Amino acid sequence: MVDFVPAVDLLYDAVKAKGHVCIGLDTCAGYVPERERRKAQNDAQAVLAFNKAVIDATYDAAACYKVQIAYYEEMGLAGLGTYSETLKYIRSKGSLVIADIKRGDIADTALRYANAHFSGDFEADFVTLSPYMGMDSIEPWLSKAVSCGKGAFVLVRTSNPGRKDFQLLKTSPQSAYLYEAVGEKLSELAKQNKGKCGYGIFGAVTGCAERDEALRIRQQYPELFFLIPGYGAQGGGAKDAVSLLRNGNGGVVNASRSIITAWQNAQNYTEQAIKDADNNFASGASRAAVLKMRDEILSYGAQQ
Amino acid sequence: MVDFVPAVDLLYDAVKAKGHVCIGLDTCAGYVPERERRKAQNDAQAVLAFNKAVIDATYDAAACYKVQIAYYEEMGLAGLGTYSETLKYIRSKGSLVIADIKRGDIADTALRYANAHFSGDFEADFVTLSPYMGMDSIEPWLSKAVSCGKGAFVLVRTSNPGRKDFQLLKTSPQSAYLYEAVGEKLSELAKQNKGKCGYGIFGAVTGCAERDEALRIRQQYPELFFLIPGYGAQGGGAKDAVSLLRNGNGGVVNASRSIITAWQNAQNYTEQAIKDADNNFASGASRAAVLKMRDEILSYGAQQ
Repeated sequence: MVDFVPAVDLLYDAVKAKGHVCIGLDTCAGYVPERERRKAQNDAQAVLAFNKAVIDATYDAAACYKVQIAYYEEMGLAGLGTYSETLKYIRSKGSLVIADIKRGDIADTALRYANAHFSGDFEADFVTLSPYMGMDSIEPWLSKAVSCGKGAFVLVRTSNPGRKDFQLLKTSPQSAYLYEAVGEKLSELAKQNKGKCGYGIFGAVTGCAERDEALRIRQQYPELFFLIPGYGAQGGGAKDAVSLLRNGNGGVVNASRSIITAWQNAQNYTEQAIKDADNNFASGASRAAVLKMRDEILSYGAQQ
Repeated sequence: MVDFVPAVDLLYDAVKAKGHVCIGLDTCAGYVPERERRKAQNDAQAVLAFNKAVIDATYDAAACYKVQIAYYEEMGLAGLGTYSETLKYIRSKGSLVIADIKRGDIADTALRYANAHFSGDFEADFVTLSPYMGMDSIEPWLSKAVSCGKGAFVLVRTSNPGRKDFQLLKTSPQSAYLYEAVGEKLSELAKQNKGKCGYGIFGAVTGCAERDEALRIRQQYPELFFLIPGYGAQGGGAKDAVSLLRNGNGGVVNASRSIITAWQNAQNYTEQAIKDADNNFASGASRAAVLKMRDEILSYGAQQ
């Protein structure tokens, strides 16, 4: 019998070694420099080549990658080929990948999804899940994850304005927010299924929040590893993000557009920084953006 | 400029002409008779051939099809090829198809998903959506749907036991269930975006419920067209399902396993019924199951 190391332990170690950045490869063809795009047979191929260049230029400086499947589904079957190849390429570098698929379905269907995303063409280390249908839409993933060393991040408190519609409704009997009811259930599950690092093998998606709320959330769920979106393009900063960390670990901070389209704002980086980073202009800019973000988070974290 | 007929109007007419059955093509290779499976090159091809036979045998007797993408994702890239071909085949028959994808993501990501599932390789007439992130995860789909005559069903009250975890929490200030908070928001949106049939172009997933609850839900949301799962394998019956209809329309009732694996329980159908239905044993049994279900719903509906 093979004993799998839970993915959360690998992620914990990756954060220790390489910082907190989770690079979001939400790549559409429009993000690929025109010159590179014209070289490719089609958009799906252009995105794959671009992703590979970004991965080559950044894998030693990021904790993990997150790949948003919507961008690939939009390109149809060829796009999903690129999605599959991107995941494989990340894993071939020894890096971890979160499949941002936000699936949420029950029973047999959940198991099918778990087979789809924890093995085969679309194998990832972690997935993101949506809890609306209830814990029977989460648990089937757990048994599969335990058996093959995978993990998941369940949507708890997101950073989009629409979180007010339902996540921030007060629920009885505890008069807690809906997202706290979700966090509570997830917490129970994490306590019973921990990695050696002390975090549950299932964690939470918890967006950048105001400092007070962030600190409260961190305190409420000490055993949950956080996937923290909302950095950069979505307005959150390193200061907000570090409030969700714990002893300098326990979370990865995702940025997508600000990294992969960094080449469009190359004035933010010195020519030398880009040249030093990589021969390829676009991936060089991405690397410069990653290093800047990583160091910002580390420096704020050190002040905590 | 082309004026698109909203998909909900087409579905309304389909119910009038062909009854309320929504056939769930949640097909895995294990549901294909061994003899047929051996004829195919691989599992994805076996499922495609099986789906086509079922569609040929049933499209005149069902309101629409629902294809659960998890079963196809499980088979990887080849499976998604079968998913794409199945959708195309249904539409080539002039039938409607609901892509059961339960997506739920925001802003640009939602638009990417909408492009993916309202056009191109994965074009469907309707999709299913999950509301946890808030209405900004629903609205981007709406603008796209309006522009191309598509529709959606948003998860409101599902029929799995886990619905108790979150959907049935009481929320303040109205002291309504969470699912009613979702239904309310969806209702507002439907009122502003109706088809000629009087139903909103976005409807709700509302599982079979106890008669009293079902009648109350139907009364609360007169403008929502319902996708009603939970029939057959999930324990609901025609009697429960019809309580969610309105004047004999306003809903389709989904059954998956009880239809596509009907051949495994062929003792439920007379040999003649199967022979009459189709030369192919499996799809013949499926047709017999569809006709039985359709007539049960119609007869209960007539008693209302």
